[in-house]
Amino acid sequence: MKCSKCGGMAVINLRQHRLRLCADHFVEWFATMTQRTIDTYSMFTPTDKVLVAVSGGKDSLSLWDVLLELGYQAQGLYIGLGIDEKIGYSDQSLDMCRRFLADRHPGAVLHVVDVTSEYGQTIPALARTRRRGLGKPCAVCGLVKRHIMNRVARDGGFAAIATGHNLDDEAAVLMQNTLHWQTGYLARQAPVLEERDGLARKVKPFVRIYEREAAAYALVCGIEYIYDECPFAKGSTTNFYKDLLNQLELNSPGAKQQFYLQFLRVRDSGQIALADAEKAEMHPCRRCGQPTTAGELCAFCRLWE
Amino acid sequence: MKCSKCGGMAVINLRQHRLRLCADHFVEWFATMTQRTIDTYSMFTPTDKVLVAVSGGKDSLSLWDVLLELGYQAQGLYIGLGIDEKIGYSDQSLDMCRRFLADRHPGAVLHVVDVTSEYGQTIPALARTRRRGLGKPCAVCGLVKRHIMNRVARDGGFAAIATGHNLDDEAAVLMQNTLHWQTGYLARQAPVLEERDGLARKVKPFVRIYEREAAAYALVCGIEYIYDECPFAKGSTTNFYKDLLNQLELNSPGAKQQFYLQFLRVRDSGQIALADAEKAEMHPCRRCGQPTTAGELCAFCRLWE
Repeated sequence: MKCSKCGGMAVINLRQHRLRLCADHFVEWFATMTQRTIDTYSMFTPTDKVLVAVSGGKDSLSLWDVLLELGYQAQGLYIGLGIDEKIGYSDQSLDMCRRFLADRHPGAVLHVVDVTSEYGQTIPALARTRRRGLGKPCAVCGLVKRHIMNRVARDGGFAAIATGHNLDDEAAVLMQNTLHWQTGYLARQAPVLEERDGLARKVKPFVRIYEREAAAYALVCGIEYIYDECPFAKGSTTNFYKDLLNQLELNSPGAKQQFYLQFLRVRDSGQIALADAEKAEMHPCRRCGQPTTAGELCAFCRLWE
Repeated sequence: MKCSKCGGMAVINLRQHRLRLCADHFVEWFATMTQRTIDTYSMFTPTDKVLVAVSGGKDSLSLWDVLLELGYQAQGLYIGLGIDEKIGYSDQSLDMCRRFLADRHPGAVLHVVDVTSEYGQTIPALARTRRRGLGKPCAVCGLVKRHIMNRVARDGGFAAIATGHNLDDEAAVLMQNTLHWQTGYLARQAPVLEERDGLARKVKPFVRIYEREAAAYALVCGIEYIYDECPFAKGSTTNFYKDLLNQLELNSPGAKQQFYLQFLRVRDSGQIALADAEKAEMHPCRRCGQPTTAGELCAFCRLWE
């Protein structure tokens, strides 16, 4: 298999782009694609400070790496969730982030927030005591992460929080929302969520990058990452939809990409108009000051009552 | 497994409805569901003459049967396509329709139009000579069937053409249109296509019936049908989408139904608005008088030039 650009030995076949690339040209392509996505959706500029949410996995570390390589002011945020599940998941994840720094970007800044030492309980323990999520801590985990990301982004004056959500992630969510025709969710799913009422701006520079490409980038660049996905993600509906989409992709290369990008196009051009529920008014939480639609205390602060 | 209604031995488990039914109660449920669909979408009334397009398969024979049982003035239309493919597909299909009449409804009327004797060529031969459809005659076949159905419906003064499209068929088409976000097709896909400009009304009374339910109805009622699907349908994209949807259904009973029916609901309630291309003006074909958007001759008449 030869590189479409230089004729050297290709390491990856991007069937949906009809491109086969060698290691060097793949890294170049990957950076260009990310840059183009940042520009297309006006995500941020080189003068902006960007907070990259890193988990130690391939997507977030590849994202942080490519942003730094492209010259962006990207700082990392690692949130220690206290997930062990007999594989020391959270400890391993932090270790990967530290190794990444030491090996690739010794000068970069990593913010670490440890939920247990800061709030007194691990996420799984918290989910158990609050009896939320039917045995899975995912709902509580999402709530806690959103709160902490928002706090660090606002306190640090970051222009945006960047997450490593890739095209497979976004297409799976789109499939879930489409199969249920949840028009409110369909109206809001986007590569950029603008700042509003004290909620920091959120951007997804990898919405045009396939999951396997983010993994390949890490591999080619020698970035070590945690291979295990979160033990609680096993059997998730997201993974089920990803499997379905991969069958589609196998049958017709580019199907995943077309499904997601064409959705954005028809929605943004007005060919499809979606009724969105009125946004509830937000006010600051009495305890933490973060925006909430609930009563005096936000959902995060109520968790610890 | 016990019948949810009478406690007798159940023959089918309708997981999406949380119902297990014995043979008698299933037949009753099937007729009620069909009747409810006809009423919900105002498809036709007992005083209307309805033309049922029958192929000899489970869907169309079950449809014809249940419409007659419900007391509708349902006449059949069989179109002989001349498909042999070493299994005598078309001959077998007609044979099934004739047996159905003899066994179940000796007094019912079946119109038979044989493409070869009427126009001089089988569908596969015609597709080959016209070099349409990349080796598959499906596009030509659809065109010919639509033309003939419309002609017989108009000449016979039928209020509607009823086809046996079931929920699996409709959900597969919806999935295809959604994956490509074809807003024009999405705007028009419906259980009823109203009459316009000389195009007869078309209705699909089985849009709430699963494929396996139509098969079970035929089985329980002792209706013999052709088991083979059309030899040219093998490996079709529709079948691929049906497989995907069946995986979804297995994972979450009712998923197929929700996908399709919820789509109709959000579209008809205006929660999702789809841009439809302007309908091209139609005029009668100079030769056959049927409506066409093309020049002097319609696509059907040009086929035989």
